[in-house]
Amino acid sequence: MANINNSFSKLAAGYLFPEIARRTNSYLKENPNANIMKLGIGNTTEALPSALVKAMKDKLDLLSNRETYSGYGDEQGDTPLRQALVKYYSRYGVELDATEFFISDGAKADAANIQQLFSTDSIVAFQDPAYPVYVDSNVVGGRTTGYSEQLQEYKNFVYLPCTEENGFVPNIPNEKVDLIYLCSPNNPTGAVMTHEQLKRFVDYANENKAVIIFDSAYSEYIKDESLPRSIYEVEGAKSCSIEINSFSKNAGFTGVRLGWTIVPKALSCEDGEAGVLNSMWNRRQCTFFNGASNIAQAGGLAALSGEGLKQCKDLVDYYLGNADIIKEGLESVGLVCYGGGNSPYIWAKTPNGMTSWEFFDYLLKECNVVITPGSGFGPAGEGYIRVSSYGHRENVINAINSIKENFKNVN
Amino acid sequence: MANINNSFSKLAAGYLFPEIARRTNSYLKENPNANIMKLGIGNTTEALPSALVKAMKDKLDLLSNRETYSGYGDEQGDTPLRQALVKYYSRYGVELDATEFFISDGAKADAANIQQLFSTDSIVAFQDPAYPVYVDSNVVGGRTTGYSEQLQEYKNFVYLPCTEENGFVPNIPNEKVDLIYLCSPNNPTGAVMTHEQLKRFVDYANENKAVIIFDSAYSEYIKDESLPRSIYEVEGAKSCSIEINSFSKNAGFTGVRLGWTIVPKALSCEDGEAGVLNSMWNRRQCTFFNGASNIAQAGGLAALSGEGLKQCKDLVDYYLGNADIIKEGLESVGLVCYGGGNSPYIWAKTPNGMTSWEFFDYLLKECNVVITPGSGFGPAGEGYIRVSSYGHRENVINAINSIKENFKNVN
Repeated sequence: MANINNSFSKLAAGYLFPEIARRTNSYLKENPNANIMKLGIGNTTEALPSALVKAMKDKLDLLSNRETYSGYGDEQGDTPLRQALVKYYSRYGVELDATEFFISDGAKADAANIQQLFSTDSIVAFQDPAYPVYVDSNVVGGRTTGYSEQLQEYKNFVYLPCTEENGFVPNIPNEKVDLIYLCSPNNPTGAVMTHEQLKRFVDYANENKAVIIFDSAYSEYIKDESLPRSIYEVEGAKSCSIEINSFSKNAGFTGVRLGWTIVPKALSCEDGEAGVLNSMWNRRQCTFFNGASNIAQAGGLAALSGEGLKQCKDLVDYYLGNADIIKEGLESVGLVCYGGGNSPYIWAKTPNGMTSWEFFDYLLKECNVVITPGSGFGPAGEGYIRVSSYGHRENVINAINSIKENFKNVN
Repeated sequence: MANINNSFSKLAAGYLFPEIARRTNSYLKENPNANIMKLGIGNTTEALPSALVKAMKDKLDLLSNRETYSGYGDEQGDTPLRQALVKYYSRYGVELDATEFFISDGAKADAANIQQLFSTDSIVAFQDPAYPVYVDSNVVGGRTTGYSEQLQEYKNFVYLPCTEENGFVPNIPNEKVDLIYLCSPNNPTGAVMTHEQLKRFVDYANENKAVIIFDSAYSEYIKDESLPRSIYEVEGAKSCSIEINSFSKNAGFTGVRLGWTIVPKALSCEDGEAGVLNSMWNRRQCTFFNGASNIAQAGGLAALSGEGLKQCKDLVDYYLGNADIIKEGLESVGLVCYGGGNSPYIWAKTPNGMTSWEFFDYLLKECNVVITPGSGFGPAGEGYIRVSSYGHRENVINAINSIKENFKNVN
């Protein structure tokens, strides 16, 4: 008599993107000639860098020859790629060992699975708003008793509001928590934490034997050299932090799938001495994962070397150029904007107290532009929209021109 | 105060392959000129089929052009690939819908993660011996109170012995169980279940509202057309079975990574009506996974069409040819062998009551051949060895010739 894992039934409906599609399609049905322009999705649009493509084709040639073919690789990833990541981090003065890196098929899976290392009764803190995977994976992990429709929050979870007042960087928790998810540059707000802000979390975590899960998937978008790209640039972080990163947003690997997670050997927690979490994640990956695609890994290695690094930087600069155009355009019609600059996302305040969905509908109908309502990322996202810089330059310009032409001071 | 998930500490040490490496290296240290021949590992060795390579290079060309580039795909996999799988199953008279297929990065991850759908107090039955991932993932899933060194078994787990007497196909459980893992063709024994044998499990599962997790990763090795390649060839299976399969062993994708899981909409369980488990796995994949690599998926699509199907068949036939050579060679020195024929694995009985590890040492020292001790796959594997057909033909012949020349009737 198999019974289901009831934690799944506690998940609130995945509402955001289906609802965006529903409203957009409904509008298109009534206005079949409308030219809808999308600034809503965090999905890369530009071609893969040629140096990466060449490396992946070369790998396919090796796999085409029985003398150079290889099958299963190490679950932890190819050693040359892990070593290249060691070098990549050393650029910022961060010293790590190759055995602290675990290559994965992307940041999402690791961000969702990492909670498996911790006990079910862990108290977990999340930035609000946040990438929904952190919250949802902890719901499935059995750490909430249910969702409160009234509060738009899961019970037992600690929400750390990111607001205009705190510059969208939350304060450390008031209570004792066990796990803290942080994302910088942040999706959706685009806020980047400073050394000092991160240090406060690191100190809190070390004092409380809490563990920080640091998602740095957008680290390559940081152009301001005073800002930390890795949490390990902050003193004391290795004993309390796991870092998750990806080739998705700098190498265009959203569909190719490649990422990595760092579990330092110095990392400890209340009942796990230094090294235990590194060993556990190793065992977890060896049991639940069979290594990232060897083709993707060949591309990732190229992304970390010479020409590949340069081409990935150009790709990032392209999207950051889009972000500049978006931010300037939105500000020119009087909207208050945050993010951009060191992030691909613009976090814009809705005008005149509109809700996120009201402003979504306004932009859809008046400007034919689709964005993402901020309230979809958590209750503190209400009153904001996320505008994404992922798109062809000409489409971004058209969308912004449409907003400039059609936006009336709404009320 | 973060605490670890204590279920990890219940995992017995991953002993098998490290111990094989330790004994092999120790022998090599004493005999530096020995030419060690490996018949131990289930890892493909031959070149990727050219039609698949071409398709993957073509995909890379599409990704190299901003007009044809694509980023994130559907978490469930590309629709054309899911549709091609529908057609692939229809060859055996199995009718499934594309929305019942979930493309993954390989069978291992799905085999490990599928238990997440079920309650922690589920009673789980495993074939003994078996692929260790089924057992280990359920240990992490919290379904045992610990390991009994004496019994070489985890407590609360139900072991279904696969013995010479039952032809290595277990009887249905004597007690009520909730989940049953079956693998056919079996790793490690090479046994293939008949329609009648599978039907007994399907009937048991339907009667007890249990769920069968059917691993058919070696289905393409079945040449005897009277044997079922999919559990859904058996009447009643859709209401009680999940099937997991892979491109690893027929397309050589062990390193490229691609597989699929079928969760029929007709599948139900004690507290989950038909459709619930399909929805839950969909939600699970959307939360914990971001789709398989688009390059691998292009290769998988080619593997299911025209020239690709033919080339994959040739690859399987090559390994089956190795299996024939191995079985014939081992039988020629008087060993009792099972498996092969419709499977890449030979399951050989140790002579004169030797333990698996004793015979491992004998073959290493007398013949310089490395195999896998059967006891590493579970207590009922004691007294057997697994010999793998994955290897270059010339290496397989050399290894078998060495056994023929150096094997003495041991006692």
